[in-house]
Amino acid sequence: MTYQAPVNDIALALETAAGLSNLIESGIAEGVDEDLVNAIVEEAGKFAAEELAPLNAVGDTQGASLEDGKVRLPEGWAEMYNNWAAGGWAALPCPTEFGGQGLPSVISTAVNEIWSTANLAFSLGPLLTQGAIHAVHAKATDELKQMFLPKLVSGEWAGTMNLTEPHAGTDLGALRTKAVPQADGIYLISGTKIFISYGDHEMTENIAHLVLARLPDTPAGTRGISLFVVPKILINEDGSLGERNDVYCTGVEHKLGIHASPTCVLSFGDNGGAVGYLIGEENKGLAVMFIMMNAARLGVGIQGVAIGEAATQKAIAYANERRQGSTTQSPAGQMVPIVEHPDVRRNLLTMKALTAAARAICYATAREIDISERASDADERAKAAYRAALLTPVAKAYSTDLAVEVASIGVQVHGGMGYIEETGAAQYLRDARILPIYEGTNGVQSIDLVTRKLPIERGEVVKGFIAELNQIVADVKASNAPGFDVMANNLDAANKALERATVWIGQKVMSSPDEALAGATPYLRLFGIASGGAYLAKAALAASRKANGAAAGPVELAKFYAGNISVQADGYARTITDGGASLLEAPADMFAAS
Amino acid sequence: MTYQAPVNDIALALETAAGLSNLIESGIAEGVDEDLVNAIVEEAGKFAAEELAPLNAVGDTQGASLEDGKVRLPEGWAEMYNNWAAGGWAALPCPTEFGGQGLPSVISTAVNEIWSTANLAFSLGPLLTQGAIHAVHAKATDELKQMFLPKLVSGEWAGTMNLTEPHAGTDLGALRTKAVPQADGIYLISGTKIFISYGDHEMTENIAHLVLARLPDTPAGTRGISLFVVPKILINEDGSLGERNDVYCTGVEHKLGIHASPTCVLSFGDNGGAVGYLIGEENKGLAVMFIMMNAARLGVGIQGVAIGEAATQKAIAYANERRQGSTTQSPAGQMVPIVEHPDVRRNLLTMKALTAAARAICYATAREIDISERASDADERAKAAYRAALLTPVAKAYSTDLAVEVASIGVQVHGGMGYIEETGAAQYLRDARILPIYEGTNGVQSIDLVTRKLPIERGEVVKGFIAELNQIVADVKASNAPGFDVMANNLDAANKALERATVWIGQKVMSSPDEALAGATPYLRLFGIASGGAYLAKAALAASRKANGAAAGPVELAKFYAGNISVQADGYARTITDGGASLLEAPADMFAAS
Repeated sequence: MTYQAPVNDIALALETAAGLSNLIESGIAEGVDEDLVNAIVEEAGKFAAEELAPLNAVGDTQGASLEDGKVRLPEGWAEMYNNWAAGGWAALPCPTEFGGQGLPSVISTAVNEIWSTANLAFSLGPLLTQGAIHAVHAKATDELKQMFLPKLVSGEWAGTMNLTEPHAGTDLGALRTKAVPQADGIYLISGTKIFISYGDHEMTENIAHLVLARLPDTPAGTRGISLFVVPKILINEDGSLGERNDVYCTGVEHKLGIHASPTCVLSFGDNGGAVGYLIGEENKGLAVMFIMMNAARLGVGIQGVAIGEAATQKAIAYANERRQGSTTQSPAGQMVPIVEHPDVRRNLLTMKALTAAARAICYATAREIDISERASDADERAKAAYRAALLTPVAKAYSTDLAVEVASIGVQVHGGMGYIEETGAAQYLRDARILPIYEGTNGVQSIDLVTRKLPIERGEVVKGFIAELNQIVADVKASNAPGFDVMANNLDAANKALERATVWIGQKVMSSPDEALAGATPYLRLFGIASGGAYLAKAALAASRKANGAAAGPVELAKFYAGNISVQADGYARTITDGGASLLEAPADMFAAS
Repeated sequence: MTYQAPVNDIALALETAAGLSNLIESGIAEGVDEDLVNAIVEEAGKFAAEELAPLNAVGDTQGASLEDGKVRLPEGWAEMYNNWAAGGWAALPCPTEFGGQGLPSVISTAVNEIWSTANLAFSLGPLLTQGAIHAVHAKATDELKQMFLPKLVSGEWAGTMNLTEPHAGTDLGALRTKAVPQADGIYLISGTKIFISYGDHEMTENIAHLVLARLPDTPAGTRGISLFVVPKILINEDGSLGERNDVYCTGVEHKLGIHASPTCVLSFGDNGGAVGYLIGEENKGLAVMFIMMNAARLGVGIQGVAIGEAATQKAIAYANERRQGSTTQSPAGQMVPIVEHPDVRRNLLTMKALTAAARAICYATAREIDISERASDADERAKAAYRAALLTPVAKAYSTDLAVEVASIGVQVHGGMGYIEETGAAQYLRDARILPIYEGTNGVQSIDLVTRKLPIERGEVVKGFIAELNQIVADVKASNAPGFDVMANNLDAANKALERATVWIGQKVMSSPDEALAGATPYLRLFGIASGGAYLAKAALAASRKANGAAAGPVELAKFYAGNISVQADGYARTITDGGASLLEAPADMFAAS
């Protein structure tokens, strides 16, 4: 099987969840039209199928490793990257003043999905470079922008994010990497960073490390953290490359998946200090880093969609090929392709429905980011920024939890062959498992949603969002299309569950935060269930209005989701409002190590 | 962390779900008393912690491989096995007339759990040997029993199950391995079997392969299949070992997990035919194989419990050790162990609750097997056999689906460290992933439950079981213990959902089988949710009656399950009764390969 970009599904999600034509009409997606978007998606799909997908298994098998101080990537990896950059793909979402194409987030999101579907371990590199570009562009001095952005935008250099230290993962306030200011305005960085994806390699001639560090005598916790850009190779005044900077990879992790992505231990300043340049103000580094992290979180959500898509395509291909057993309709003594079995169809439709729901939520988030950055009206920008802030943790966590589930179902569809590594189904499960962890664990996303995002504008933002979900249900009801009434009832019940849980948790955040925290994970799940169902229904409505044969797929998918996923909403609402008590009452010895 | 057998949890499940004291009183567990059981569990736990657990990671890292035609096991593996057999553990569940200890299934189930928790890849070997003993003991001639059983019971030889062929996995009727009868009463076997766990090794001096094969000119499908025992080394008349039989390992699979368990391709008869001995009657092999498979299915369910336990212990240990962030109660600027965070507690309690529920269901199934084999009253035996038949697919599939989920949560609790192989959390996820696949995929279990088990005695068996669940809820209500009313309401709703779905699916099996098949997987899930909740409540009742400090754990666990897992039941019931329509209506092109 060759990977095929799901151009129709992507187009439908862009049209409905991302409201692409509205973005085009309103001038937010300036210079873009549907034909251009379709052409980009088609081309990306072609490149991904031809260049990225064939190296996915190679990357998994060979992995990245540290040999004689150098990070070795799998065979063909550097060439693949260079072809990708040469195709202009690195520049696609980047600012035009530094050589980028300035395309909106909805398009880069779709294209990122395609890269990640074909080769997740590859896609992580560009995702981090995009994050670095974002931060430098947003907050660095013009001089630094000139120094770094043209090379990063063209893909000649790569970027990394250096947050985690051995004792400081989720809790960044605890980090200890030091930055000592020098007379000439630079800083000397020293310390150890771990879990640095693409932390070192020779795929690009230079690497821009974005590094969180602490100045001497700064306040404890997060208020004392600054952000620096630290090039792997120092840059001369004329822009040419100079000496090696004092940052080295001292280890590459042995991981469950994404083997080709080198997860590095980076040691800064072992020989006196790595030269770093401050981005933004001193002690305000975390705020800048959040710019990178929010974009990266949506990017990781999209990786979840991508793994869902890849696992689904593979499972469908196998289910059509593998013959086993008979059905109620098949001729006696003849084995049918297993896709004919209702239980296998349940697995495949579950995979498709969850993937499509996650895609819709991610694309809807990208839409809000575009409006927040590009709308002419400041109020509109602010409103969209809030909406994007609300949806980002859902896009990240719901999509990536589903990715693990979908990849696991994909293994199951393959039966015994799914457990054999050469089949490739297991790689998706192994690769997927990092997604709920990195860029803020899904637990952190849930807590972020509940404690920081729900309270925005005293709850008006989430209220407005739920009102929009309700409007979709009203449209579904009003459509009177066959079977849409049942779908609307299921969606309505899910929305009501979300409303009920939102009110409850919104009060508890203030009055009894531990109860809110105990319900955070099921709340995010419920949020994802309800919004995914609404977006799929919106897509079904749009497809049914086109009134041609293509409608059946999106319509049945939305019905399936409503009848099989949305119906779980009430259970989660009850978990949130009633299930947390036993958790908080549980005696400490239930959690004692044996 | 060292693995610790959860002796208290096991004792509580034996007492409540397995009704051990009742089995002892009624003479079914003859010669056993609680002290003996506790001593066995303690000893097994000690052996597992000292001998099996330390090689779990070694086995994963080194794996099994085929070198110069010989299967190489990890270092120390054979010695570990020999120590285990020398300790008399192989003989524990085996018939006394061949040197076994004849202990009931409830005890061997508890002990099997302990082996699997410490080292899943190891435990698979003994599990298959037990199955082989079962089949030979049940159906072979006395001569064959004498030839094989003493050596298998002592653990000097191992046993395997040879069902699958490349084109015949779930659909055994399609198998092609040939058995040609010879003048001297033996058969010459030829063909290829795949996915044969412990199919070859030098850990034991001989291996007894139980092989399904087809005689010449037999009816097509499952009615033409016979069962043979095929020794790796031929056995002389005096019982000594003779020539090598014509069966060879031609490949060892490269798998996602259980690396130390050699999954072999076995080639029979490349040099004229492997000598095999018929077990039972010609063409009736599948019925005999089902004797092995049913025991093995419960054994796999127990492996699911075991992985749940192992992953939970590891996650709890890490959560107590790793410090990160602060809580609403912690002193400012001080990091707390992550076990203090409500969201982490939700993860840990979920792991504990699902594991305990799965354990209870498996132990309850073992109880029915014991009664079905050992009760003096024939009616009682028949009733218990039906109940065991009903529960076996639930024990297998619910426990193993949960194992994957629990192991995945375990990775999540470890954050970034969970993705690093050296941590060991990821191994549990990789190992667990085979459990929903082997010994009949969980889809097959669900279909078995719905199409073959529900109709037993025109539905009276399942009806009787649900009545028992309802009785537990009534007892919970009647207890008037604090908070038990809420728990009872949640459990009651789950039972009602199960009843409703059972009636619906029971009718559909007759009138519209595709609708029943479409609901099979969620039905099994619902069955597991409801019965697990009832068993945990039963345990909570028993613990609370003891009225000492130890009650809090089981009580809070049951409350947590009721408030967070049982509440999902209604959604699954709705999926079964209403969610299948979209699945059956979905157009074929939604399942077409791209």
